[in-house]
Amino acid sequence: MDKRYVIKIGGNIIDDPPGLQKFLQQFSIVPGKKILVHGGGKLATRLADALHVPQQLIDGRRITDAETLRIVTMVYAGLINKEIVASLQALGCRAMGICGADADLIRAHKRTAMIDYGFAGDVDLINKKAIEHFFQEQDALVVAPITHNGKGQLLNTNADTIARELAMALCREYDTSLIYCFEKNGVLRIPEDDRSVIPYITPASYPMLIQEKENDRPVISAGMIPKLENAVRAVKSGLQQVIIGKSDALDALINGQKGTTIRND
Amino acid sequence: MDKRYVIKIGGNIIDDPPGLQKFLQQFSIVPGKKILVHGGGKLATRLADALHVPQQLIDGRRITDAETLRIVTMVYAGLINKEIVASLQALGCRAMGICGADADLIRAHKRTAMIDYGFAGDVDLINKKAIEHFFQEQDALVVAPITHNGKGQLLNTNADTIARELAMALCREYDTSLIYCFEKNGVLRIPEDDRSVIPYITPASYPMLIQEKENDRPVISAGMIPKLENAVRAVKSGLQQVIIGKSDALDALINGQKGTTIRND
Repeated sequence: MDKRYVIKIGGNIIDDPPGLQKFLQQFSIVPGKKILVHGGGKLATRLADALHVPQQLIDGRRITDAETLRIVTMVYAGLINKEIVASLQALGCRAMGICGADADLIRAHKRTAMIDYGFAGDVDLINKKAIEHFFQEQDALVVAPITHNGKGQLLNTNADTIARELAMALCREYDTSLIYCFEKNGVLRIPEDDRSVIPYITPASYPMLIQEKENDRPVISAGMIPKLENAVRAVKSGLQQVIIGKSDALDALINGQKGTTIRND
Repeated sequence: MDKRYVIKIGGNIIDDPPGLQKFLQQFSIVPGKKILVHGGGKLATRLADALHVPQQLIDGRRITDAETLRIVTMVYAGLINKEIVASLQALGCRAMGICGADADLIRAHKRTAMIDYGFAGDVDLINKKAIEHFFQEQDALVVAPITHNGKGQLLNTNADTIARELAMALCREYDTSLIYCFEKNGVLRIPEDDRSVIPYITPASYPMLIQEKENDRPVISAGMIPKLENAVRAVKSGLQQVIIGKSDALDALINGQKGTTIRND
């Protein structure tokens, strides 16, 4: 089976230009075809402040009103996406920046929930054929977390979810690794100790792990549970592996030397 | 010879949402493969004002300092590009938004001139192979006027020039029409009279036309001359035709019923 990598980077890397450059250098030499999904960092918030557009957060989720949608479309699909693509071209990596509306890559619908999240999209469909076609000529796709509903409406969509959906769409035909880069070395047994990485989690070991305690404290912190639940579910549904770790050692994450790998066996 | 259309729309259409929707509806049914090159309208200037980034213009050209480059990248390659793509998808037109850095579509170099235009790019190279590849799956490419230098630097580039360079790259293999949409019905004999369109100009008739006077006034206004010079030069170099006219009658422009057509014979 041919390999595919879907790598998600968060705001902490976007907001650190030298760190981002180092990451992109490593990303550019990952062998084979790869997708980079990026969030937006603090830039969208700063721009909203400068434009006096008040930002509402409910349970850590941004409420995307019409003005905020325009801002995130500018920042994510415009500035950040194109700066990353230009950097990758300079590194000799044939890259293509894209959002979910382009080539009808990601269809979504406006979230309907008790809370009105505004123009927030939940993913319906990944256009796998378009990805395959891009990869005939490109080494990398750089995906901004903006989708569309097929009726002309752009939607702001969670970058973690987009990365997972892309990986799920590819995993039937390819040995696919979904890599979440964040600010820690991996899933930590002791949150304060960056050396306490749990190297390996399986759907079988996971239920025991979340029951485990160390010094009267759960081994898996509350904030980590949704990420891990999603990873375990993805692996159970056929995704080959999910890797969680720090962006500054991408090669070591891929090789399994660093980070936490969630895999079936 | 298969047909190709490269259509450039300016700020006057971008700034008029109902007019833009009407134009996109017509664009979506232009038969065959087509490229839409868009400028940015007043949005970039408004955003610069809101962010207190002073805008310098020399001879009508914007000076692109580092902050202004970030703004135009956000507005052109982000917001406007993606809104157009989402609208085209809703119209059943398979569209792909792109800037010059994506897929290495347009290489440019930073302009060196007596006046420092900042991060302004002059086009070096069009990646024709990438265009061909996109057209295997897409009906339309939507191109934002941002290019790159291959060394990681994005550059702000004139949309008229990008449209011309794209058309020139295609005209050897395709019967290519370059269409400039602007606020008038075409090249006018009497600027105040929108019915006085000159329907047809050839490289042979052009030198006489710019000598002609009507009521002691040159027939071709000074502002129109650079546009026409470029069009005549393109046609002399092998481009099948250039059409200049109003965006609200795209089908009539293409059929030669409206607007000014510049062609060899």
